[in-house]
Amino acid sequence: MLKHKLTPLSNFLQFHSKASNHLFPLARISSSSSHSQSKMEATSYMFGPYKIDKKEVFYSTDFSYALVNLRPLLPGHVLVCPRREVQRFAELTTDETSDLWITAQKVGKQLESYHKASSLTFTIQDGPQAGQTVPHVHIHIIPRKSGDFEKNDEIYDALDVKEKEMKQSLDLDKERKDRSIEEMADEADEYRKLF
Amino acid sequence: MLKHKLTPLSNFLQFHSKASNHLFPLARISSSSSHSQSKMEATSYMFGPYKIDKKEVFYSTDFSYALVNLRPLLPGHVLVCPRREVQRFAELTTDETSDLWITAQKVGKQLESYHKASSLTFTIQDGPQAGQTVPHVHIHIIPRKSGDFEKNDEIYDALDVKEKEMKQSLDLDKERKDRSIEEMADEADEYRKLF
Repeated sequence: MLKHKLTPLSNFLQFHSKASNHLFPLARISSSSSHSQSKMEATSYMFGPYKIDKKEVFYSTDFSYALVNLRPLLPGHVLVCPRREVQRFAELTTDETSDLWITAQKVGKQLESYHKASSLTFTIQDGPQAGQTVPHVHIHIIPRKSGDFEKNDEIYDALDVKEKEMKQSLDLDKERKDRSIEEMADEADEYRKLF
Repeated sequence: MLKHKLTPLSNFLQFHSKASNHLFPLARISSSSSHSQSKMEATSYMFGPYKIDKKEVFYSTDFSYALVNLRPLLPGHVLVCPRREVQRFAELTTDETSDLWITAQKVGKQLESYHKASSLTFTIQDGPQAGQTVPHVHIHIIPRKSGDFEKNDEIYDALDVKEKEMKQSLDLDKERKDRSIEEMADEADEYRKLF
């Protein structure tokens, strides 16, 4: 049982083994190209104050992870987050920023293809006045198809409603009225095969 | 008089000097951290099929440039583009992707502060079905304040209208009904001092 934990005085992530009480630092990568695709050791990930089950996470690197959405707007609507919890995009280091977007690029490409879509919406609502509800940087990635929303801009109306609902749902984490953990785990299983 | 030009068979940008007819390659940077802030030699930049006057560009790196907007939605609404013209985000190399977002991060931070805003909206409309009109990757960065739009999602409605208008205006480049090149150059001059 591993649970990752932040060291507030550094940019290094550490994983804290509850079982052995052994702290081991995760090596910091100096280049954004040296991704690891096998950082699935953690049993849960933090998304702001919320614990995300690893079953919902379908891809991760040393600095970032991608998770399925509690209430997707459209098929393949997922989130990509930095592992380190910071509220604002400007708080990320250059390594974290590079890794986050290279991850988002890869995830977007695979999910667009998987869902037979033809475009992608990438958005960060960076701060409360931009519509952010969970105070942990996250990229919304939404595969888009012709005619998926009557007017393209409606996707954003819907995104805003979803962002608020996501917060409410996460606050009531146990209830999960919309999608079961099983349903989300199944979706994540499918996506995991793409990487 | 320099005009940059793409070499279709490589990821390297080249600048073509019209005066001397001398081709010199721009050194490729291997790390996203080795930015150059003095790549202002070009007299114009390409944004899809459109030539952007360098007066409108207030910040640039080896791979990216930031320009003021023909029709900003809100004060400080600017665009960040890769220098290389590609339509889709997934076509960017990892170096270009890193540089683009580190540039966007820096630009967003400075413009949020300059405009006394408290949040930022970052969006890529990646492909026509996501609302893209100019077929050249571009990040919209919009400083946000409390109450700037009655509902947060209205920013996206407006963004969509603006994206269409921008295309129309660029198509009628000479007309410039909305903002004069002087007005845009003045804004870019202000922003250039921030970097």
